[in-house]
Amino acid sequence: MDHLPIRLTETVKKGGCAAKLPAGQLRQVLQNLAIPKPEALAVGSETMDDACLWDLGDGRYMIQTLDFFTPIVDDARSFGAIAAANALSDVYAMGGEPKVALTILAFPTAHLPLELLEPLMEGALERITAAGACLGGGHSIDDETLKLGFSVTGFVKKEDAWTNAGAKVGDALILTKALGTGTLMSALKSKKATPEWIDAAIASMTQLNQVRDLLGSYRVHAATDITGFGLAGHCVQICRASQLKAQITTRSLPLLPGALECLEQNILNKAHHSNAAYVAENVVYHDIPIPLKWLTVDPQTSGGLLLCVPKESAEAVVQLLQKRFPMTARIGFLMAGDASIEFV
Amino acid sequence: MDHLPIRLTETVKKGGCAAKLPAGQLRQVLQNLAIPKPEALAVGSETMDDACLWDLGDGRYMIQTLDFFTPIVDDARSFGAIAAANALSDVYAMGGEPKVALTILAFPTAHLPLELLEPLMEGALERITAAGACLGGGHSIDDETLKLGFSVTGFVKKEDAWTNAGAKVGDALILTKALGTGTLMSALKSKKATPEWIDAAIASMTQLNQVRDLLGSYRVHAATDITGFGLAGHCVQICRASQLKAQITTRSLPLLPGALECLEQNILNKAHHSNAAYVAENVVYHDIPIPLKWLTVDPQTSGGLLLCVPKESAEAVVQLLQKRFPMTARIGFLMAGDASIEFV
Repeated sequence: MDHLPIRLTETVKKGGCAAKLPAGQLRQVLQNLAIPKPEALAVGSETMDDACLWDLGDGRYMIQTLDFFTPIVDDARSFGAIAAANALSDVYAMGGEPKVALTILAFPTAHLPLELLEPLMEGALERITAAGACLGGGHSIDDETLKLGFSVTGFVKKEDAWTNAGAKVGDALILTKALGTGTLMSALKSKKATPEWIDAAIASMTQLNQVRDLLGSYRVHAATDITGFGLAGHCVQICRASQLKAQITTRSLPLLPGALECLEQNILNKAHHSNAAYVAENVVYHDIPIPLKWLTVDPQTSGGLLLCVPKESAEAVVQLLQKRFPMTARIGFLMAGDASIEFV
Repeated sequence: MDHLPIRLTETVKKGGCAAKLPAGQLRQVLQNLAIPKPEALAVGSETMDDACLWDLGDGRYMIQTLDFFTPIVDDARSFGAIAAANALSDVYAMGGEPKVALTILAFPTAHLPLELLEPLMEGALERITAAGACLGGGHSIDDETLKLGFSVTGFVKKEDAWTNAGAKVGDALILTKALGTGTLMSALKSKKATPEWIDAAIASMTQLNQVRDLLGSYRVHAATDITGFGLAGHCVQICRASQLKAQITTRSLPLLPGALECLEQNILNKAHHSNAAYVAENVVYHDIPIPLKWLTVDPQTSGGLLLCVPKESAEAVVQLLQKRFPMTARIGFLMAGDASIEFV
């Protein structure tokens, strides 16, 4: 093994959740398949939820999810931590507690020294342990490019589960992390990002989406985490599942340092375009500057939770969440209407 | 989309479980990590079991596992079916019933038409449904080469769970499927396999490892499924976990049609060599012809179960299993000794 610094992002074309398959085409294939849904599967793939819910028959749901992607940062330890936080997030997005994680690893033995596995897995293991979960095993293959992710299982009391379908008219939309990881990670790849921007983005992406303990007795009607399909893509999935319309105040969107600068320089990746196409029929922009339009479809990796909260408690919830997630913002609300979003 | 026939195996360098990372090096990294193991995790990665067992606290274990790989056959529907049967197998290997599967998909949109997704997922869905499980969601990325697999969750009563660690002195070793998928799939890639050989291998790989309902009241002390590390590699994992020595009668090993011909022509892949290195210190061969030595480390994809059964019931169990798995054979036994295998 030589000791040249390895920039992980130089080993891949697209990083993180930007490398997802186009949502629209995937939806089409899934619709054609007519996937059977047994009664115990309370939530499956039909609502595009973050994870599925399986009725354990004892008052609990088992929550199962998985996520994996190529390097979006250069440092193995940080990449491991982000991959873990991102996979754990889907359990948090359903209101549950993650318990068991299994590694999904594709490692290019021809291009990277196997020694990299240790910091990579250390970074992941630290986040999994911090979440109160454990590593139960996994599967690894030799591949052309590095990919890491986790299949995570968690549990939630049935009455405490959050899904995409539970939102109500009038609910406030609360976002817990700042946006912009997609454009910032593209800027990192093309060496246009400052170290400060990247450090802030990494800090955001490695933070666990653990919010339930902050909420006290406040209720959440619906939730999702913002990942590869961007704010608009994931919000549309809530709108579709809950049959409601969202109004989002674009200038209230929290931004990572450097995100706007990058979007103003038109630093985009393929997912910006496919996400825009995915939501095109369901999104209206009222006089929104182009960089902010791109922000609404910026593919997030390990982004924040989007919570649908009764409007009476929205301010109190924002204040509670800001103790751990300082960028938390109330960004809009839900109303009766077709499954769509108005950005004002 | 053009209508040229696409040979999926031509799109990848290594197929199926042959593309696993070398087991020895992986083991080293896992040992250095000192992975925490909470009490509820009854079986984690330490025994190299096929899946982990999580104590649900109500008399049941949750079984969680995942597996994914590149195409080993040319037909999308068959590849989907094999990937599903292979992933479901790890739950069967722990004695459980699979219930929920999530898709792990890497799809090369630049090289393959998205239409291929439909037969691919149809083939998988048919096997998942036949197993009494359901598809709960998944994650897909755009990638250089096609990869498909599943994270599967199942359940088992605690007293019914089979692990690598439960084998006893005197137990008979029973193998439920014939060996040879590694060399046969390499022969397919290099166009040296007959269609009949490939059809027989596909029929074997798509068969579900569902055996419990056949066993009646007969007990199994330990079990694993034979996959990427080959018969020797997976049997060594049982020997290590149970601290026993195995003796295997090489001429009793069941063979897929064409497997011996391919091994006699020295049709091997990288995993034959890394598997041989993995078990080198723990395996003794007494006068075994070279092609049969390679057979013992042939990387299986969706291989059979290796069951450790009290010797008194071995013949009865073989007869029961042969009703569904005609190639089932009693291949050896376990005795006191260091964790190793003697091939006689």
